[in-house]
Amino acid sequence: MTRLLLLNGPNLNRLGLREPRVYGHTTLEQIEEKLTQLAKEHGVTLLSKQSNHEGVLIDAIHEAAAQKWDGILFNPGAYSHTSIGLRDAIASIEVPVIEIHISNIHARESFRHHSHISAVSIGQIVGLGVYGYELALSAMINHIKGEQL
Amino acid sequence: MTRLLLLNGPNLNRLGLREPRVYGHTTLEQIEEKLTQLAKEHGVTLLSKQSNHEGVLIDAIHEAAAQKWDGILFNPGAYSHTSIGLRDAIASIEVPVIEIHISNIHARESFRHHSHISAVSIGQIVGLGVYGYELALSAMINHIKGEQL
Amino acid sequence: MTRLLLLNGPNLNRLGLREPRVYGHTTLEQIEEKLTQLAKEHGVTLLSKQSNHEGVLIDAIHEAAAQKWDGILFNPGAYSHTSIGLRDAIASIEVPVIEIHISNIHARESFRHHSHISAVSIGQIVGLGVYGYELALSAMINHIKGEQL
Amino acid sequence: MTRLLLLNGPNLNRLGLREPRVYGHTTLEQIEEKLTQLAKEHGVTLLSKQSNHEGVLIDAIHEAAAQKWDGILFNPGAYSHTSIGLRDAIASIEVPVIEIHISNIHARESFRHHSHISAVSIGQIVGLGVYGYELALSAMINHIKGEQL
Amino acid sequence: MTRLLLLNGPNLNRLGLREPRVYGHTTLEQIEEKLTQLAKEHGVTLLSKQSNHEGVLIDAIHEAAAQKWDGILFNPGAYSHTSIGLRDAIASIEVPVIEIHISNIHARESFRHHSHISAVSIGQIVGLGVYGYELALSAMINHIKGEQL
Amino acid sequence: MTRLLLLNGPNLNRLGLREPRVYGHTTLEQIEEKLTQLAKEHGVTLLSKQSNHEGVLIDAIHEAAAQKWDGILFNPGAYSHTSIGLRDAIASIEVPVIEIHISNIHARESFRHHSHISAVSIGQIVGLGVYGYELALSAMINHIKGEQL
Amino acid sequence: MTRLLLLNGPNLNRLGLREPRVYGHTTLEQIEEKLTQLAKEHGVTLLSKQSNHEGVLIDAIHEAAAQKWDGILFNPGAYSHTSIGLRDAIASIEVPVIEIHISNIHARESFRHHSHISAVSIGQIVGLGVYGYELALSAMINHIKGEQL
Amino acid sequence: MTRLLLLNGPNLNRLGLREPRVYGHTTLEQIEEKLTQLAKEHGVTLLSKQSNHEGVLIDAIHEAAAQKWDGILFNPGAYSHTSIGLRDAIASIEVPVIEIHISNIHARESFRHHSHISAVSIGQIVGLGVYGYELALSAMINHIKGEQL
Amino acid sequence: MTRLLLLNGPNLNRLGLREPRVYGHTTLEQIEEKLTQLAKEHGVTLLSKQSNHEGVLIDAIHEAAAQKWDGILFNPGAYSHTSIGLRDAIASIEVPVIEIHISNIHARESFRHHSHISAVSIGQIVGLGVYGYELALSAMINHIKGEQL
Amino acid sequence: MTRLLLLNGPNLNRLGLREPRVYGHTTLEQIEEKLTQLAKEHGVTLLSKQSNHEGVLIDAIHEAAAQKWDGILFNPGAYSHTSIGLRDAIASIEVPVIEIHISNIHARESFRHHSHISAVSIGQIVGLGVYGYELALSAMINHIKGEQL
Amino acid sequence: MTRLLLLNGPNLNRLGLREPRVYGHTTLEQIEEKLTQLAKEHGVTLLSKQSNHEGVLIDAIHEAAAQKWDGILFNPGAYSHTSIGLRDAIASIEVPVIEIHISNIHARESFRHHSHISAVSIGQIVGLGVYGYELALSAMINHIKGEQL
Amino acid sequence: MTRLLLLNGPNLNRLGLREPRVYGHTTLEQIEEKLTQLAKEHGVTLLSKQSNHEGVLIDAIHEAAAQKWDGILFNPGAYSHTSIGLRDAIASIEVPVIEIHISNIHARESFRHHSHISAVSIGQIVGLGVYGYELALSAMINHIKGEQL
Repeated sequence: MTRLLLLNGPNLNRLGLREPRVYGHTTLEQIEEKLTQLAKEHGVTLLSKQSNHEGVLIDAIHEAAAQKWDGILFNPGAYSHTSIGLRDAIASIEVPVIEIHISNIHARESFRHHSHISAVSIGQIVGLGVYGYELALSAMINHIKGEQL
Repeated sequence: MTRLLLLNGPNLNRLGLREPRVYGHTTLEQIEEKLTQLAKEHGVTLLSKQSNHEGVLIDAIHEAAAQKWDGILFNPGAYSHTSIGLRDAIASIEVPVIEIHISNIHARESFRHHSHISAVSIGQIVGLGVYGYELALSAMINHIKGEQL
Repeated sequence: MTRLLLLNGPNLNRLGLREPRVYGHTTLEQIEEKLTQLAKEHGVTLLSKQSNHEGVLIDAIHEAAAQKWDGILFNPGAYSHTSIGLRDAIASIEVPVIEIHISNIHARESFRHHSHISAVSIGQIVGLGVYGYELALSAMINHIKGEQL
Repeated sequence: MTRLLLLNGPNLNRLGLREPRVYGHTTLEQIEEKLTQLAKEHGVTLLSKQSNHEGVLIDAIHEAAAQKWDGILFNPGAYSHTSIGLRDAIASIEVPVIEIHISNIHARESFRHHSHISAVSIGQIVGLGVYGYELALSAMINHIKGEQL
Repeated sequence: MTRLLLLNGPNLNRLGLREPRVYGHTTLEQIEEKLTQLAKEHGVTLLSKQSNHEGVLIDAIHEAAAQKWDGILFNPGAYSHTSIGLRDAIASIEVPVIEIHISNIHARESFRHHSHISAVSIGQIVGLGVYGYELALSAMINHIKGEQL
Repeated sequence: MTRLLLLNGPNLNRLGLREPRVYGHTTLEQIEEKLTQLAKEHGVTLLSKQSNHEGVLIDAIHEAAAQKWDGILFNPGAYSHTSIGLRDAIASIEVPVIEIHISNIHARESFRHHSHISAVSIGQIVGLGVYGYELALSAMINHIKGEQL
Repeated sequence: MTRLLLLNGPNLNRLGLREPRVYGHTTLEQIEEKLTQLAKEHGVTLLSKQSNHEGVLIDAIHEAAAQKWDGILFNPGAYSHTSIGLRDAIASIEVPVIEIHISNIHARESFRHHSHISAVSIGQIVGLGVYGYELALSAMINHIKGEQL
Repeated sequence: MTRLLLLNGPNLNRLGLREPRVYGHTTLEQIEEKLTQLAKEHGVTLLSKQSNHEGVLIDAIHEAAAQKWDGILFNPGAYSHTSIGLRDAIASIEVPVIEIHISNIHARESFRHHSHISAVSIGQIVGLGVYGYELALSAMINHIKGEQL
Repeated sequence: MTRLLLLNGPNLNRLGLREPRVYGHTTLEQIEEKLTQLAKEHGVTLLSKQSNHEGVLIDAIHEAAAQKWDGILFNPGAYSHTSIGLRDAIASIEVPVIEIHISNIHARESFRHHSHISAVSIGQIVGLGVYGYELALSAMINHIKGEQL
Repeated sequence: MTRLLLLNGPNLNRLGLREPRVYGHTTLEQIEEKLTQLAKEHGVTLLSKQSNHEGVLIDAIHEAAAQKWDGILFNPGAYSHTSIGLRDAIASIEVPVIEIHISNIHARESFRHHSHISAVSIGQIVGLGVYGYELALSAMINHIKGEQL
Repeated sequence: MTRLLLLNGPNLNRLGLREPRVYGHTTLEQIEEKLTQLAKEHGVTLLSKQSNHEGVLIDAIHEAAAQKWDGILFNPGAYSHTSIGLRDAIASIEVPVIEIHISNIHARESFRHHSHISAVSIGQIVGLGVYGYELALSAMINHIKGEQL
Repeated sequence: MTRLLLLNGPNLNRLGLREPRVYGHTTLEQIEEKLTQLAKEHGVTLLSKQSNHEGVLIDAIHEAAAQKWDGILFNPGAYSHTSIGLRDAIASIEVPVIEIHISNIHARESFRHHSHISAVSIGQIVGLGVYGYELALSAMINHIKGEQL
């Protein structure tokens, strides 16, 4: 059975509370519930985790590899821009990763334009709001099935 | 009735022929057919256009605005990295644009890491192969409906 | 008889429609009419042309040189910042060029601060709204007459 | 009654004497006389000031604001490129400023390509010789009248 | 009643032990005691926390917001220069933050000259030794009272 | 008896008048009066000076050294970012200097992020409004007394 | 039979007319005639095309690939420095390309020193005047024959 | 008795599993055992620790200083390139540190070429595989003995 | 009769008092006396001037040109690095200028490595202490005589 | 009689042995023989020299000038990128130089993209393998004859 | 039998004489003797060479390859930072190279932080004093034996 | 008795022959004769050496130190800009060095503006033609005598 990890990085626990003009009003809990239910409809198990700690996120990625999960949907938050440790963690595993950003990071401050994660993820979904999580789930299932169109 | 423009930029007419290791074997024609059919299933009209000419693409964006289309799915190809004219065309209209890249531009040469289009599109779908077009269609319909989750 | 070309680049066909907060409400058509009339008052023939195509603009500049026009009033729009081809076209002719920008490009995004056209035009009029076209006409006539004060 | 300040910065007292190949043979005195006369024809009072001292120029800008003059025609000379103090002085007042450069600074050394004054002035007239002062006067009167075309 | 958080980042637990030529001989414990007592004199509750873990500091900032504290006095240590996660944590809350550095970071290595925290804090007190903490307390109380002078 | 110089640079004479959204409504005169009175309460003589002239500010710093004053509270305004002459003046004297900025320069344009004065002053107080002057006075008195806590 | 495309980019239609100090007096027509005749002597068919339009040049490259021509002699003019679209067009085909520049671009303005075309062409002939076209023809024939010396 | 700390940073727990083409097949456990045994042969106690958490590594360095260990053999992994906090931790202690990298970081991506740790460690051993740990042990013992040759 | 101007810029009035480790113990007065006497021995009149004001220095250079002096020995101090106004003043006159720096600016902070004055002076004498003034006098007399060896 | 120097720089003595994937299997000796024979067919004397020493190459260029040779075919190898001494040697002579690179340096590491030699040579032949030497010989003879087409 | 080359670059002949605070008191002769003896104990022949000439060092590397030596221990001194010729020499041979620096180049001037040699050597030993030579010998013997632990 | 070395670097053997517009008509031989004679008048022995080889120049500097000469007058030519080896050679000796450039390197190409030699020489004499050698001799004798004025 297909098993996916939904991993969220720093400050995403404050979704809905934090800068709603930028990030909207949906909470992380609501996203996790919605994704879990959508996954179930596809016969996929989804595990959710959030942490503000770079090390905890690295550990979680290692664990996903050790447990041979099938894919990771990852919103690395601000660590996108500063963490080579997370980049290396992803590069060190076979599990495919899709990177998600809720806001359009390319329309914000220049220090948000570069992500260390992008080059080691298979793709990115950026700026499409919390709906981006649904798209990422869809893309990962498609990727695992290996269909082109 | 919702009307969308699927717009493809330079060299995308050679999809399937061009560097299959990077871009896969699906042709642009196949993508346009698949998207048209998917759109129809959502009750959406989809018009497809491709050009290698920057000016023709600008004209097409103007035309979409003049005709009050509802959204543009745009793969600007190499013009992403060099065309401020396309950026200004998008900034000058009300119609929402989603940017698509088939390959993971952030894992390729550094001159592909920056896109002038990103800051004026609502979001980007990058590196997820030709399936990215389907995701973009889905995202645009979601965007027009204005739902959060 | 003195003959001048009024040449406008990409997206300027949308003047009045496009971002009125930045560019005002006057349309390109109104500018062309006003300039034609002002030129006539000075006994000058003014031809107007606009294109979103870099190649068409290069062709127009070549044509102006071939036809031995006396000057070009040029608003290159976004091509100012990206087109060395237009720069070379101007450098390759004897006809003097004055560069016009409606908005104050130096108070906007940094990628608008540099213009490839500036070094090969005789001067620039920037940020003075559509009135800048009138100033440019006045300056070109003065330049052709060769008066200092 | 409309009152304008014509302000000239460092080394412009040597116009006509200084590098005539770059700046022409007209003296600053001749420019001030011509502008005063042209202003009078429009029913405008024009006051002229030149200084090589950054502080004196800042003081003059403050004074113009305190006296509620209607506009400043300013050729900041070399201070364009180095003075944030002048920039702040202009930003701190309500009086509109038009920036003038006699030579085409964009065709000269790269350290002349950037002006701190541009972003806080309403527009620039560059490279059109001493005739640029007449254009600036015309533009300021137009600006104060608030006409678009 | 006003409640403030005194938050210290990495290596500040070694104050007094660490490079006394740069940071002086006072220990963090002594600072926390002094500040607590000064706060009490102003009728303010002060809670002190130090951690070498970026994630723990982010958690503490979130907690301060959740508990509706009134202000944070924050010496982010080396994370000033590398943590966008901390920046985002501060940007995501309503609680005002004042940034403190004991040493004059602008007189040290160039990688210490930029702080990600500065743009989202209300102000900085830099280089004034451990006395800077007292100044920050005073500034925060003044800020909360909203007095200008 | 302790004697301090309160030195303010370009455009600070317009405090209260100038961009109140950035700098508040308090005038420089009010600040000077408040500081003089606070100083007196500590048994300290405070002399106030403001100039828009870089040279006058350098002369004032030399004079403070020649007269063996005990400290300088200095808001260099825009000269912070451009004047190596002021930096050298401070480096050439024994008198300690504290740098003050009313607004948070690190949250504004990038050309305001670097100050030539910072490396030669003992510390900076930034972004804390006009209250920053009081903090600077307090810090200088503490510095002269040489106490750590 | 071997078939080659001689492709010339923007402003090369003005060869002989344009800046003869830089580019000499030979016209493009003369070059095309000479090359056609030389090719014929080698039993090679040579087709010549020039355009100022980036899109037309991309189309021509696609066409050459579709028609399975054997090589392209390409002087991309100013598009060398700005067109990633042309670079991608060349990268997307199997046909070998040799890049030609008449003038020594490395002895001119710094923005001419980099060519996007160089990395995807097999080699470059630069600065050797119009004779460079003959050398390129010779090199392409040699390349197709696959001889080393 | 001499006591050394062998400290390994993020992702090194996956040695042997992770990218064997880059890092080889030896596991961290095997390295720690080998080093412990080699140390014992020199009459040296070796303690081993690995963590993916920046804060835990900083704590460990502080602890080594508090316990007055004699040296640290440190492979900071990806934190080499991003952690000023670790740099400051090392700078704040008297214990000598030798930096180890298994792969040749200078032959990899440019973001791996700079290490914040290098300037505060006494030396580096780079690119010599897991044998580098043995060399570092040897170098540290030599360093503590203070011999030159 | 040959007449030379010895011009000294900001902070040089504090020579002998200021950072003697960098600049030595000789005062500016002693230098001016020595140079005047040496000049007299060569039958040359030497006038000395020092100012901390950029504008006063520009005025002095203009005056030297107006009075047709024969050469300027100029130590621009910190204005070397920041004043394009002084550069333009020198460029605007016929009088030759030799630039002097007492300390070796190339062995100091990087912001002292570039001088705007160097490109418009005929030569520089740097780092040779106050003896550099004597060398400059000698070089100027040699330059005016026009001898090669 | 026309006399040419064929000059090869560092590591070119290892041609054929060195990285055949990049440089092919032909040896330098074979190239020198082939070129000598081709030159003879044109009635030209060709002298060949190779050295790994920058100084020896400078001496050889001086010697060619002293002996009034007619041209130099120069592959400067790695000194292209680092030697201003060789650049100055070429700039100091009247003899024309054509620069040759066997591999396509613009498709390799970025430090190979710039050549100090290019701006002082008349042209470059790059990436066309050892056949580039024949083209250079042909180009030099053409250059000396001064024919355009 | 294993044969190794110990190669030292510019200024290393002055070891022991030169800046002993940076490089210690041991002479190059002493190092060469010690290494030769250590090599002999391992049954390895060690040849020593030092030169201040870039070309001589390149020749020596070529010679080592021609003679099929088994490894090179190389301290390239200042040529590390400037010689692409040496880099290419190493890249052109099969013999493995270990790079040695006596001082910690990463704790010195920034122009010493980059070495052209690093990317083509198998590893580096930096900052460990003259003992680094012994480590390099040990590492090379280990490398040739091909053992992992 | 005082003994000085006059050392000239690459291409200076061509003085008088080379680019006389930049370097004048005097030959190196004439300079060496004149300097030798002037030195003799001061009771100083002067030895002259020129080489195009970086290694030979390093050797000469080492030799000067070994022989305990009293000073070096050094025109490093193009090696100023590229040789860290020469910089290190000078830094490794006690003998003082004065750097000479005949032309005004700061008024030429930007790659000539930086000299590695400047920071380790005691001073520079730049742009004063061949007379600069006489000034350097005078400065060195003054330096050795240790007089201030």
